[in-house]
Formats: sequence, structure tokens, C-alpha cells
Amino acid sequence: MTGTIEPTATETDALTRLLDPRSIAVVGASTDPAKRGYQAIRALRDAGYPHPVYPVNPRGGELFGLTVRRNVAELPPGVDAALVALPGPAVPGALRELAGAGVAGAVVLANGFRESGAAGAPLEAELAAAIADTGIRVIGPNTSGILNTASGANLVGVPDPAPGPVSVLSQSGNMLLSLLADDRALGGPGLHCYVGLGNQADVGYHECLRVLAGQPGTGAVAVHAEGLGDGRAFLVEAAAADRPVVLLRGGRSDAGRAAALSHTGSVASSDAVATAVLAQAGVELVDRSDELAMLAGVLAVSTPMPAGRGVAVLSDGGGHATLAADALTAAGVPLATLSGTTRSRLRALLGPPAAVVNPVDVAGATDTDPTRFVAATEALMTDPAVGLVLLVGLFGGYHLRFGKHLKAAEEATAADLAAMAGRHGMPLLVHSCYTVDRPAAHHTLRAAGVPVLASIDHAVRATAALHRRARRGATRSQRSTLRLPVSEKCGYSHTSHSRAVDEPAARRLVEAAGIDTGPWWFARTAGEAAALVGAHKGPCALKVVSPQAPHKSDVGGVRLGVTADAAEGAWRGIVTDVTTALPEAVIDGMVVAPMAPRGVELLVGATVDPVFGPVVAFGSGGVLVEALRDVTFRAAPFTHLEALEMIEETVAARLLDGYRHLPAVDRDALAEFLVRIGDLAVATPGLVELDMNPVLAAGKNLLPLDVRVVLSSPASPPG
Amino acid sequence: MTGTIEPTATETDALTRLLDPRSIAVVGASTDPAKRGYQAIRALRDAGYPHPVYPVNPRGGELFGLTVRRNVAELPPGVDAALVALPGPAVPGALRELAGAGVAGAVVLANGFRESGAAGAPLEAELAAAIADTGIRVIGPNTSGILNTASGANLVGVPDPAPGPVSVLSQSGNMLLSLLADDRALGGPGLHCYVGLGNQADVGYHECLRVLAGQPGTGAVAVHAEGLGDGRAFLVEAAAADRPVVLLRGGRSDAGRAAALSHTGSVASSDAVATAVLAQAGVELVDRSDELAMLAGVLAVSTPMPAGRGVAVLSDGGGHATLAADALTAAGVPLATLSGTTRSRLRALLGPPAAVVNPVDVAGATDTDPTRFVAATEALMTDPAVGLVLLVGLFGGYHLRFGKHLKAAEEATAADLAAMAGRHGMPLLVHSCYTVDRPAAHHTLRAAGVPVLASIDHAVRATAALHRRARRGATRSQRSTLRLPVSEKCGYSHTSHSRAVDEPAARRLVEAAGIDTGPWWFARTAGEAAALVGAHKGPCALKVVSPQAPHKSDVGGVRLGVTADAAEGAWRGIVTDVTTALPEAVIDGMVVAPMAPRGVELLVGATVDPVFGPVVAFGSGGVLVEALRDVTFRAAPFTHLEALEMIEETVAARLLDGYRHLPAVDRDALAEFLVRIGDLAVATPGLVELDMNPVLAAGKNLLPLDVRVVLSSPASPPG
Repeated sequence: MTGTIEPTATETDALTRLLDPRSIAVVGASTDPAKRGYQAIRALRDAGYPHPVYPVNPRGGELFGLTVRRNVAELPPGVDAALVALPGPAVPGALRELAGAGVAGAVVLANGFRESGAAGAPLEAELAAAIADTGIRVIGPNTSGILNTASGANLVGVPDPAPGPVSVLSQSGNMLLSLLADDRALGGPGLHCYVGLGNQADVGYHECLRVLAGQPGTGAVAVHAEGLGDGRAFLVEAAAADRPVVLLRGGRSDAGRAAALSHTGSVASSDAVATAVLAQAGVELVDRSDELAMLAGVLAVSTPMPAGRGVAVLSDGGGHATLAADALTAAGVPLATLSGTTRSRLRALLGPPAAVVNPVDVAGATDTDPTRFVAATEALMTDPAVGLVLLVGLFGGYHLRFGKHLKAAEEATAADLAAMAGRHGMPLLVHSCYTVDRPAAHHTLRAAGVPVLASIDHAVRATAALHRRARRGATRSQRSTLRLPVSEKCGYSHTSHSRAVDEPAARRLVEAAGIDTGPWWFARTAGEAAALVGAHKGPCALKVVSPQAPHKSDVGGVRLGVTADAAEGAWRGIVTDVTTALPEAVIDGMVVAPMAPRGVELLVGATVDPVFGPVVAFGSGGVLVEALRDVTFRAAPFTHLEALEMIEETVAARLLDGYRHLPAVDRDALAEFLVRIGDLAVATPGLVELDMNPVLAAGKNLLPLDVRVVLSSPASPPG
Repeated sequence: MTGTIEPTATETDALTRLLDPRSIAVVGASTDPAKRGYQAIRALRDAGYPHPVYPVNPRGGELFGLTVRRNVAELPPGVDAALVALPGPAVPGALRELAGAGVAGAVVLANGFRESGAAGAPLEAELAAAIADTGIRVIGPNTSGILNTASGANLVGVPDPAPGPVSVLSQSGNMLLSLLADDRALGGPGLHCYVGLGNQADVGYHECLRVLAGQPGTGAVAVHAEGLGDGRAFLVEAAAADRPVVLLRGGRSDAGRAAALSHTGSVASSDAVATAVLAQAGVELVDRSDELAMLAGVLAVSTPMPAGRGVAVLSDGGGHATLAADALTAAGVPLATLSGTTRSRLRALLGPPAAVVNPVDVAGATDTDPTRFVAATEALMTDPAVGLVLLVGLFGGYHLRFGKHLKAAEEATAADLAAMAGRHGMPLLVHSCYTVDRPAAHHTLRAAGVPVLASIDHAVRATAALHRRARRGATRSQRSTLRLPVSEKCGYSHTSHSRAVDEPAARRLVEAAGIDTGPWWFARTAGEAAALVGAHKGPCALKVVSPQAPHKSDVGGVRLGVTADAAEGAWRGIVTDVTTALPEAVIDGMVVAPMAPRGVELLVGATVDPVFGPVVAFGSGGVLVEALRDVTFRAAPFTHLEALEMIEETVAARLLDGYRHLPAVDRDALAEFLVRIGDLAVATPGLVELDMNPVLAAGKNLLPLDVRVVLSSPASPPG
């Protein structure tokens, strides 16, 4: 806590310096032990922070042997981080002074800003102006602080966080306490860096993710968020990150969203959109708050799983083996089919009662000799179908269950198992009923990077994540970076004014993107319509084109199966119905299109999400769309592979292989169609919504029966 | 372990005596510490079992100061339980001897029976004969044993199980170890009675459930099962039980089922059927093995939740509050809408920063004074909309987080909170990040029956169960006992011979049960058909009736929209198509029925499940049935209320309120229809399958377009 400031490389950006500071000013330092301005300096001292600390308080004096500077101007140049422990109204001024003194960044604890609603708005605006004017990087306000266990830069004040590889981004200080408690309870690997995002007045999730994922000490990043701010930037960083990113979202329900709004003033996206696009970016989403620390901890220490392989379960009890197999199946993780050689090896090793088909049940063969797990695991890891071994049951507790004399054998087994997993370059996960007893064998495994978990469900959740990462790693070059062209980066907020373009314009927009919308014609008069139907030599649909009637069917604007001789009558019927329903309607003409062929009814759409930008929707189409809610999303632009994965997520995928009497659908053609819609969504300025329901699919043919497009119209007020 | 046998009331049944034995014989007692026949007696001594123990071994002698009897005949009369620690082949003979000596029941440890497949079949048969001939009650074989902590009757040999209110039924001894470990890790309430079911050669789950749920020391029953044996009897016992029953199933996936088969030779039912009918019986199903001990522990100690009320969340951090609200919403638990009075009280108590809309966030108001939780909880429990308070966050850790001086205040608060929950007769659940530190405040709460949980997800899972039990308790008189008429009790196994009855017979079967299948007629000739269509004065469907063509549509046996003048041609077309596809087909005639009106397409069916007996299926109908998999089940007979609940579980329910342009459907009429189908399923001897797809529903009208019935035909071989 003494000495001079170490030089930081000039190219290191301000946020990187702030999150791993080599010098810290505490603005609002205090001699009152109840105040953060006192506690922070004590915490830095307790954590052994080795770099300079500068207390600042107009009263001056001394604190923990450090000279208290009377104002920010007295700071030496180039301070990395300032903890601002001042009341809200004093914050904007302090930030301007800190920027003037060349401080890289500040952590602002005060609340009373955006999260207080209208009352906090003026102060939030002042804060925003100070940030914009000076360029100083700010974490918060309304944050619990930041923490770096590698240096002891503890600006949160939690006592003795165990150092380790998990970095944490959170909107809630209590979540840090939860994560630290879970890490202790689970025997997890410990914490590297923590950032409490607070209101995100300046620094947001995506920037922190980039910095933390780039720190050598980070093995995985655990994120808790109620609102991701620039969601698209977060997707881009997550997709690019080498380190696993595990995310727990708060505010997914209406009640939760309302609570989150009062908590940090965050706005959330549609939960379904967020779920799909975050998974697309490789983020591991956890639905349970009790799995965030667990999953980040396992991913932070585990060897990656080789791609294209399955899981082998090795258990010492049939009950556990069965539950593990069930849970893996439910999680979509394939169980490896063991080779005959492997089964023979296991049979020779474990004897007749053992079940040597995966899941393997040793059925008592290890009760008197736990070292047999080593050869059994070796047999499994040697099998080319196996990419991960999950040991399930009592390991570590043999000396407690079957006799103290087994203790040494168990500990030797733990060391051998860990070494073997290292040799095979393959993850080994251990479940044990005896974690609560904290046996030495578990410590040995954990010290070697082998997670030991008390819950089969936890082990399976982690296995599923490792399996997904294996697949993702093997297909990385076939995935989108999720970056948007520069012109699209300036925000996704819609104006409140938007308008549906008419069907011919909508069809032309889609066709310009290389998508065939099938034969159709525009008729200006009843005579033209009759001629068009006649020329087609088959029944057609007639659909009104009127700016006042975007919902054509609801006002009688559609006639189906119209023959040439009936066309003029149909035209007149439409005109009568539409003008009866909407007396002010101006009818520009009608779309004439052949009646639809048979096909699978699909839904394809696109929208611009307020958090994640352009996204494409795909699912089951037709009239049951709303009841089924069978729809998934991808952030655009996306790739052919991502489109294929998107298709398989839906119930609609089950209809594509010639279901009942429906025609089979070519998945590659459908994927290509979706990719083009994604490109269109990115390239169309002012797109609010594109909706094609149904798209009739048969073979390689994809025929949108209707195309609805809504564009924002910033220039003109609504008519 | 000495003295004479206490008299047991003569009316006490043998199984009740076996599971709470006042005298125990150990057959196969041994002086070898590695053998169960030694360990069992040591475990009884260590557990302080106060009743007589009789070692039996032909070698005689003495063991732990007890005289070893040379054979079973030397036992005094009326022994309650015998632990049979003999090799498999010796078991049947030993059981006959024990029965001869008047022993009530035996626990058989040996394996090598049914679970060994064909190799174990002869021994299993010998065992079954010994049981049938003597009537002795047998737990096992292939069991880990039984355990009663109230008396110290520890016939499993696990060391020092903590005594408490949770009774356990399991097919796996390792699951007991898991449950005991989880109970310790969670600070759970401890174990009352354990039964390892093993192969269920005699005693099955349903009988044990009846006995354990009836023991005064049981607060809840935790069940782990790979196969429930007589599933219907289990449903009946669960529905009748006063105590909560929590069930974890193994063998739900194909891989798990295969593993379970090799483990205990169990056969499982369809997972979807089992899930629905067990929930119908009030069983709390857990999908995660790490929630069995937790949920049983909470339910065993909690006050029931008052019916018709919601949950109030009280938190000391917005992040946790939001996550709790999200999880409650996802679990379908309503958050209480707090009254203005409650909100005012909370505002006065907690100050301006607090969020006083549910979830309540004290926002720092308790940091310096945790006793404020008492008045806040009081305010919530006084609100008539609140039936349960969930305290979320740091409670118990205030003295660790904010200063040691808060320790006494926290402990006093814990006592006050527990007392208040008792006064209000309302459950209080506490989540805390600090359970890992095992603070005294948590001990105080737990000792008073207030669960303290480390996971918000656990707390919410338990809350959901309490909420469901409240609703169930309030509607008990409106629910089925699930009992079948005596004549139906003798097993559900189908013969391998079954036959589809023809459509007229199927319709008449359904009509006899009071279900209108709409107008239809049977025509023997083309002329009759034409006359029937003519008399109807509207287009009709013609459907072939031929024993060789149960799948009419697939062989061209159906014509739709047939008018009177086209009827004879349609008839001839059907005859040609059917006899071309099936040259041997004998055509008995055709069903003539008016074309269907518009309606919602539903699926209604019934079958006789091999585990649970007659069940009714309901869901979305039409051609997409298989793709959607939108179907749920109820065990028959069931009530109107249960039918209404069944309907709401499906996606089809979303189509009943006039969805899009479909007619609205009367739910009471639909429920009545389902109840009748349930009664029909119970009353129809030899029913294999009843299938009505679609049933067209509009208003109160429910019209099955087709009725397929398959009956077993034990008398005649297939034609």
C-alpha cells in the first residue's frame, strides 16, 4: 500500500486498468468504521493489496498510516481506479475532478439515480453529462463495487473471498455473496474478478465481458443480469470469447421484471428471444440461481470434451446409475455406446454381477477395492466413443461406508484418476454422496481440476455444457460472429410511428433479397383481375391492397379459389365488404395469386429486438400459431449451420420428413431461406417487422402465402 | 437387547410389526466382522435398540453377549422381524422355517433372484412359492434392509442416521446414503423409517406407503422407485395418505430403463402416463435427485398453507427478490397482491427506498437492524391475500456481513419469526446465503419447524408443493379415491391377442355409456346408403366396415362429402379400392354419417396401463397429434374437477375460448364427457384401447368423428 505507481503500458485501455488497478484512490475516505470510505481502505489492507492507495477527504489527516489528500487535484498522475464513496449529488462533480486528474476510471457506489425512477432522473442526467464530457470510465452508480483477488483490489469489502478462476459480472451485490457462499458449499474453485455493474451509466456488460474473458486468471465468467444493456454487443463478445460464459437472468417473469425495474431500472427483452440468441452466441444459460456458481466453477477448471463423442457413466450403485442416465437423456447428452473390447475389459475387471453396458454399474466390485475404479476409468477413456467419464456414487466415502482401512486406497485412486484424465485429455466429473464429509480424496481430485459434486443433476448440467462446447468448438468456423455492419450499430430503438407497407411492396422487398414469393400479379381493375386469372388457367386468390386494410381477412378482403368467370364478381364482393367494414378505405387494387399447393405450414418472420437487434423467427405456421407458441429465434446475420440448428429446435421440424400425408421438406433449402431472411433483416433500414405466415413448404419449394412488412417512418406522423 | 418380547396387539398386521419390530432375529449371524450377519447385530447394539435380538447360526455360541440359537425353531414365539443374511439358495427354506416359528416378517438381503435375469428365475420362483405357501411377509430380496430410528431397529447398518420425521421408501440402498448426506448438508430434519424395497417379491410400495404414512413419527414420505409394482394400489394409498408423498422415479429414459431392468428387474409404465396419474393422486414428483431429501424435509415440518392465498416474498436485495419472483412465476405459484394497508405499514417500517409491492425489497432497511424483519413479516402474514412468507437473502449472516454486534438481534429475530409463523398458522420459509456458516439463527428457525434453505430454487420448489397441497386439501371431497371396483382389481395384463371391433360396435359401446356419437347409420348395400344420404338431405361420409380393414383411410375405405346421387358410385369406389388393397377383405357394409360441423379438434382416448390400470387420454386432436404430443392422462374413475384440471394441462385448452375463428367450447360439457369415458374404461371388461380422434367440439356439442375400440380376446387365437 505504499511506494510509487507502477507504469502501466500506454496501450492498456482505461477499463482494463480499472478492473485490475495498480493504484487506487478512495474519494470520500472516512475515519468512521461504519462508512464505506473507511471499510474500503481496511479491506484493501486486509487483502494485502500491494499497490498505492490514496485516501481523499477535505479534512486531510491520516488513515491506516496513509496520508489523506484534501482533494483530487493532489493525486499523483495516472491513478487507475477511484472508489467514489460520496453521496449521489456530489458524484458528477467528483467525476469531473477525477478526469481532470487523469484517473482512468471510477467506481460509484451511491444510489438515487435511474433506479429511483423519476426522482433520480435529473441526477442521472448530470452523471451522464459528466461521463460524456470527460470520457472517464465509470462502473455504477448503485454498485456494490469491484474486486480482484489476484491483486487484493477488494473494493466490495466482502471478507476473504477464496481466490480462483471464476470471474463474475452481476447487477446485484447479494448475488456475489450467494456465489461466494455456493462456491464454499460446493468446494468450488474460487473467485478471480468481480464487477458489480449497477446502473450501467457508462460501462456495460459487454465491455466487462471482453476485459474479464481476456484476463489470464479468468477460467470462466459467471454473469447475473437483469438487463444486458447493448445486448447485441454482449452477443458479439460472448461469441468471440475463449472462456465459457454462464448467464443467470433476473426479471424474466412479469413480477420479476417489475422488481428488476425498481432495482436497477433495467429493461428486458422478450424472454424467448433472449434465450435463443444467447444460446446461439454460446452462452450457457442457467434457469436456476443455485447452478450459476456450480456451472461456472466446473467450466473454469475442466478440460474441454473432445467433439463427436458421448458420455460414459461409471457407478457403484444401480439406483444412481439409472438416475444419471435419465438425467443425461433429458439433457440431450448422448451416452457412448461402448465397444466390445471395452465391455470385455470391464467384465474381466468387475466380475459377473456388473452391468458393463453404459451406464456401467460395478455392482459391488469396488466395495472392498476402490482402486478398481482406476482400471475401469482407463478402459472407458480408451474407448473411442467416450469423450467424458462421469463417476457416480460413493467415491471418497468408501472408508466411511465400508471401513477405515480403505482410506489410503481411496486417496491413491483419486490421484490416479486425476492423472489419467490429464493423460487422456478428457474431462472426468465425479459425483459423490460424501462431499459433505470433505474427504481428502475429493480434495485431491479438485486440486487436480477434477470437479466433485454432491448432486447428480449438477454433474449432468455441467456435462451438458461441456458437450455443447465440444460441438461448438468443432464448428466455430461455420458460425456467425453476430457482428452487424457499422451502419446498423447505432441503436435499435423504434420510433413510435410505423406503417405496414402494402403487399406488392412487401413482396418486392423480399424478392429483392433473392427470395421467391411464387407467382403473383397486381390487378388495378376487376377486368385486369379476370384476365390474370384466365391467363393462369387455374383458380386464384384475390387479396385487397389498401393502406387502410392491413388485416385483409378481417374485413372481407380475401377470396379464395376464384375462377376466371367468377373473378369480377369476387372483386365486387371484396370492394363491398371492405368499404362496408372501413368506409374510408382507399382500394389501390388487388393481388392475384394462384391457389396454394399442398405443403407444411411454417412461420418465418423477422423483427428488430430492442436489446439484440435484428432477429429472425421460425416455427409452426398456420392458424394455430398463437396457441402452439412453437417459435424460436436467431440473431441475424446467421449461418447455414445455425439455421439448421434453429429448425431442429422447433416442433415444426417433426413435420418436415413426410409426416402423415404431408410432403417432405428439404432442410437445406429451408435453412438457406432463413439465412436470406436474416440478411434481409440486417440490410433493411427501418425494419420493424416482417411476417410470413404461413410459408408453405414442400421439397425445395418455400412459398410465402402472404408477406407483411412494417417499417418505421420517422419522417411522417401517422396518417 | 435383552428381556422378553413385548406383547404386540393381535390386530396389528404383520407388515406393521415388521417395519417397527419389537424383536429381531438375525438368521445367518456371524462372528466375522466383514459379514452382514455380524454388522447387523453390532449396528443394533450401537443404535441402542432396546428390544430382544436373537442371533441364529447352526454353530451356536455367543455374540455381543447374546446366546446364538442353532436354528429358527429355537426362537421364542411371536418374533416381529427376521433379518435373513443367508446366500440366495438358502433363503426359501429359511422363510418356511421362520413362518413355522411364527415370525411375522423377514428382510432378505441376498441377490441372485429376478434382477439376475434368466439365471435368477428358478430361485425367484422358489422364493415366490415359499411366500405363497406360508404367508410370511418379505421385504426384498436384493434389499439394503430396513431401518427405524425411533427404536434403533437399524437393519441397514448405516452409522448414526439422524432421527427425524422423514420416512423413506427406496429401491436402492445408495439412495438412502444420498438422502442422509443431503439431509446433513441441507440441515434437514432427519430420518424416521427406511424400507429398501429391493425386488418386491412380496411387499410392495403401496403397502409400505400405507404403513409408513400411518406411523405417528412420519411427517412425510420420500419415495425412490424404478418400478412401483401395483401402481394403482400406490395411487390409492397416496390419494388417501394424510402425509405428503414425494417421489423420485428412476428409469424414465430408455437408457435409464435398461439400467433399472438390470438393477431390480422393474418394468416401468409410460413416463407421461405415470407423471400425470401420480400428480392426480397428490404425489409430489421431483425430477431432480437433489430435491428429494429437500422437499420431503420441508413438507415433513411445515405448517400447511391456507388455501386460496398467494405467496409474499420479503427480501433484503433486489437481485434475490427478482429471482424469487421469476422462479415462483415459472412454478405457477401466485404472488399475493398486497393490500394498501400492508403497503403503508411496510413503507412506514422500511422507509422510502424499499419496494413495498410484492416481492418486497427492504433495500437496506434491515442492514443495521435485522429485527425489522419481524414487523415486516407480521405485516405480510396479517394481509388476507398472503398464505406463505418467503424470506430471501442474507438472514442469519447479518452478523457476518454487517458486524458481529448484530448477532444477538439476529438470533432474537429468528425466535420471533418462528413464533409468529406458529401464531398465524402459516408456513414461513427462509432462504439464506449463509447456511454454509450454520449460524445459530438458522438452528433456532429449524428447531421451530421453519426450513432454512441455501437455494432460492429449493425454497420455490417447496413453496409450489405447499401451494398445491393447500388447493388439494380444500378440494379433497371433489376428488376420486382412485379405487377400482373389486372385479377390476385382478391385474391389468393384456393377453397378446386383441382385436379391433368394427365401427358400429365401437359406437354402440360408447353410446351405451351415455355418450352421443352424433347421427350415423349402418348401410348393408349401396342402395341403402343412397337412401340414407337422401333422407339426411345433406352430404355424408361413407366409411367401410370390414374386419380386415381397421385402418379405413389407408386402404381407400372412406369417401367424404358424398351426396345422394353420388352415393352408389362412392360405394362402388370404396369396394374397388378396399378389395384392391386387401383382396381378402370381407365388406360387411358401410357407416353413413353426416359431414362434420366446424369445431375444435380434440383427442379423447382410454387405455389400460400395465402399471396404473384404466386411464383416459385428452389433448389436441387431428392430424398433428403425433407431432404435437399434446396429451395428458387421468387414472379412471375420476371426477368433474379432475377432468377440468386435466383439460387445463393441455395446449388444447388454449383453443377452447373461441380461438381465432373456432367456436368456443363448454368446459363443463367437455369435463362431463371425459368423466363418462373414464367410467366406461373402468366398466368395460377386456378394454385394450379406445381412441376418438378427432372429437369435434363446439359449445356443448362433442362429436367423435370416428370411434376405434380394441378389446382383448383371451378365448380365441388371432384369425
